[in-house]
Amino acid sequence: MVKISIEEMEKARKRLQGRIHKTPVIQCEAINKLAGTNVHFKCEHLQKTGSFKSRGALNAVLGVKEERGDDCQGVLTHSSGNHGQALAWAALQCQMPCCVVVPANAPQLKKDGMSEYKTDIVLCGNTVKDRETTCAEMQKKLGYDVVEPFNNAYMINGHASCAAEIIEQVPEADAVFVAVGGGGLASAICMYIDEKRPDIKVYLVEPEAKQLKSYLNEDKLPEYDTVNTVADGIRVLRVGDLCKPILAKYAAGNIISVTEEEICEALKLIWTRTKQRVEPTAAVPLAGLLKLKDKARCPVVILCGGNVDLSFVP
Amino acid sequence: MVKISIEEMEKARKRLQGRIHKTPVIQCEAINKLAGTNVHFKCEHLQKTGSFKSRGALNAVLGVKEERGDDCQGVLTHSSGNHGQALAWAALQCQMPCCVVVPANAPQLKKDGMSEYKTDIVLCGNTVKDRETTCAEMQKKLGYDVVEPFNNAYMINGHASCAAEIIEQVPEADAVFVAVGGGGLASAICMYIDEKRPDIKVYLVEPEAKQLKSYLNEDKLPEYDTVNTVADGIRVLRVGDLCKPILAKYAAGNIISVTEEEICEALKLIWTRTKQRVEPTAAVPLAGLLKLKDKARCPVVILCGGNVDLSFVP
Repeated sequence: MVKISIEEMEKARKRLQGRIHKTPVIQCEAINKLAGTNVHFKCEHLQKTGSFKSRGALNAVLGVKEERGDDCQGVLTHSSGNHGQALAWAALQCQMPCCVVVPANAPQLKKDGMSEYKTDIVLCGNTVKDRETTCAEMQKKLGYDVVEPFNNAYMINGHASCAAEIIEQVPEADAVFVAVGGGGLASAICMYIDEKRPDIKVYLVEPEAKQLKSYLNEDKLPEYDTVNTVADGIRVLRVGDLCKPILAKYAAGNIISVTEEEICEALKLIWTRTKQRVEPTAAVPLAGLLKLKDKARCPVVILCGGNVDLSFVP
Repeated sequence: MVKISIEEMEKARKRLQGRIHKTPVIQCEAINKLAGTNVHFKCEHLQKTGSFKSRGALNAVLGVKEERGDDCQGVLTHSSGNHGQALAWAALQCQMPCCVVVPANAPQLKKDGMSEYKTDIVLCGNTVKDRETTCAEMQKKLGYDVVEPFNNAYMINGHASCAAEIIEQVPEADAVFVAVGGGGLASAICMYIDEKRPDIKVYLVEPEAKQLKSYLNEDKLPEYDTVNTVADGIRVLRVGDLCKPILAKYAAGNIISVTEEEICEALKLIWTRTKQRVEPTAAVPLAGLLKLKDKARCPVVILCGGNVDLSFVP
């Protein structure tokens, strides 16, 4: 199995070149005024399939294909939406069969997106355990290679291409704000930026029910297994086992917890001011930035995705 | 009073340079597939104040200032939203007092936008007559110069800067689709493009209740004075007297009427596929393009604005 390393991250970036978008960075005068600083939004909602997940997913499908050749019969995962869409899209690019296990409470738009990329969808219950159990059953049945949504080295290495673009596009950046769910994107950003630009501080922003700080520092987890939050992309409570040591090493001191109200206020700002129709999870990092008293001079806020049901109103 | 002419349009463009955005042009693979052609979206929802209106409004404020000097005490208009916001913003840039007469049924977000640019707001009834009567009263009271939303040469000359950008940004364009309300933007686009690139066909797209074709060709108007449509930016029935001959000359044969359902379907596509949170009026031109059987090879669709209430769901 491939390692999580800067070398593999660079390899992934080359592998992805020309196959994914270099997403734009935008600014908004009204939000700069409100935030009292010079905010740069990295538009991952404009990435293929509408989220950063396509970076890691395409790296995973291409990587598995290189690694296993014809032994790979297809790819399989569990996902509440963005990872499933991204893997389905990546598999379609490579003409590889794909199956996604989806909790019943996933947003309809995300389910529709997966169907469009011609993947097989298997519905399951809403807990992480339900997802993992059904995924294991399907793996036995189909013999496909499992690509975990965040706890997968290919995914993490692929996501680092987002960090590389940020460094190129906003060389004056002094902070990056990223939402943390399973920790795949957050790990990639922390590790790559620490290597290339250790002067940039990476903040992890979470819905307060996640309690990441006590998990990273004291290995303590609340008793529920999904976080009850409007940010449907980061409802998973536990960060991945591969992500935990990375987040603990690079960013345990830079965690910001935000309330549901703060997430909704940030989302309203993004919708009305930037006119970008991002999903609730994408508003979490801005909520974190707005909460911070000691402002960064030139913060980059990652808008992680834009897949949101039409009926959703913040 | 200034003329509507190509010369004045070029003068306006110079006057506006560096003061408004050159808005981006974006594409969307999913919509290209659905439309069966290579669609370019001109992003006027990313213009200052969230609509193309800032082009004309700033040209008007600067022009009136040049023309009348200290005799001008301030600017006054009536508007259901975008023009009011744009004029308020333009007046604030030039430190000029501003008053906007607003129908009570205008979207809240647009009213809030005007307040933010420190303009005085005077509420009135919902018909065009109500707006014009109240505006005339305020003019008498304040002595401000009236800047009509569309029936104003400065406005039309300023809007032509959008056509100039389209020609530069999409040289391979063979058609432009524009929504028509009062006709200010549509006139500017028709006239400027006919002069510079007569090979590009300009299509006027209207909600079907507007019946523009019989107005332009037979001078016949329905009995209502506002069009009952979800596209709140183009509810005015009559195109301006200045606009009518221009539209009749350049585009009377290229009118496409769309239903409310077609507007909403186009809006859903834009929201979910491009992730751009445009307002309903901005979806009208795409609805027209999708209805057309004889496709353009390289159409430009103008997304005219992005000011939409948070509670609005298509």
